[in-house]
Amino acid sequence: MPYVNIKITKEGATPDQKAALIKGVTDLLVDVLDKSPATTFVVIDEVEMAHWGIGGLPVEAYRQKLKAEKG
Amino acid sequence: MPYVNIKITKEGATPDQKAALIKGVTDLLVDVLDKSPATTFVVIDEVEMAHWGIGGLPVEAYRQKLKAEKG
Amino acid sequence: MPYVNIKITKEGATPDQKAALIKGVTDLLVDVLDKSPATTFVVIDEVEMAHWGIGGLPVEAYRQKLKAEKG
Amino acid sequence: MPYVNIKITKEGATPDQKAALIKGVTDLLVDVLDKSPATTFVVIDEVEMAHWGIGGLPVEAYRQKLKAEKG
Amino acid sequence: MPYVNIKITKEGATPDQKAALIKGVTDLLVDVLDKSPATTFVVIDEVEMAHWGIGGLPVEAYRQKLKAEKG
Amino acid sequence: MPYVNIKITKEGATPDQKAALIKGVTDLLVDVLDKSPATTFVVIDEVEMAHWGIGGLPVEAYRQKLKAEKG
Repeated sequence: MPYVNIKITKEGATPDQKAALIKGVTDLLVDVLDKSPATTFVVIDEVEMAHWGIGGLPVEAYRQKLKAEKG
Repeated sequence: MPYVNIKITKEGATPDQKAALIKGVTDLLVDVLDKSPATTFVVIDEVEMAHWGIGGLPVEAYRQKLKAEKG
Repeated sequence: MPYVNIKITKEGATPDQKAALIKGVTDLLVDVLDKSPATTFVVIDEVEMAHWGIGGLPVEAYRQKLKAEKG
Repeated sequence: MPYVNIKITKEGATPDQKAALIKGVTDLLVDVLDKSPATTFVVIDEVEMAHWGIGGLPVEAYRQKLKAEKG
Repeated sequence: MPYVNIKITKEGATPDQKAALIKGVTDLLVDVLDKSPATTFVVIDEVEMAHWGIGGLPVEAYRQKLKAEKG
Repeated sequence: MPYVNIKITKEGATPDQKAALIKGVTDLLVDVLDKSPATTFVVIDEVEMAHWGIGGLPVEAYRQKLKAEKG
């Protein structure tokens, strides 16, 4: 009866990639814990880039900062 | 001081139905646990069909599969 | 295929009260949105009093403050 | 390695305000718990007004009711 | 920068099984979306049986009901 | 009416530190978005070390690996 929530930044994941995440996580729960697929839920949230922070910055600003530091 | 999060697939729930969910959950917490409505939050998330998985498949593909099996 | 998460402070809800929450929320989703109970999940989280904040304070300190103000 | 999720009603927060939330929460976790910013995630969810309930009502109806009561 | 939350009922998953879930989900996100493991978080919640509802009942009562029906 | 959920690994945060997180997050929402403290909820989850994964490993194993790599 597992429930899995996957949060990713919204930057172009395709329907096929989302279906692959759903299948992969469900298979994993069947393999590792012998869960039933029929009662395994997977919910994917795509989060706007401006709404995801890391290192104290929105993710795009953070990536630019890392890139600038690496010169 | 309860917080309730309701996740449903996005397939046409009306504003009235959403208001009915908010009222129903709040009444339930008042009735069962004597909580105060003024500090009871209910947050509804409508999840895109392609983002909800069950049985290892996105929900529409899963429903079609069930229908085909019953066929 | 709804998923509902109920968060309440941990202050003595009984197993019967928890079962009543599960039944009440499920019935509500059946009544309002015609959802199937067999694919409706309800997960209850009991949160330690010291881990729940409101008004900028842990909940017990907040209640004492309200009481003192009403004096 | 903290993960912080901030849910607010969708009523016009600007990108600068969202960035200020991300920075503020990250700084707080560094100051209070000495966490590393590079592994501190902050995810902001903006929730439609019709999807947020308080006092048994969607938030706009609730605010109108409060205003009416205060006359 | 994904964040994954896995909720399972608390019925004896071992530390090795939990580690296998963490590895499996991380590998999946690397394979499907080319995410970096160093910024992929996986959080597992074990939920008390009495706190998980399905079919309008706590999960143990639900399983007994299913078993009785199959008789 | 914000709701904030803070997840941290369980490694000894004190009640004072948790209260500081509650106060800090609430103040931030007041300062940045002019939210009312009385309807701002903060919920802290302490997650067992074995239940938090990063880099494909439970967090303790991940830290040991990083340390070994730095030699």
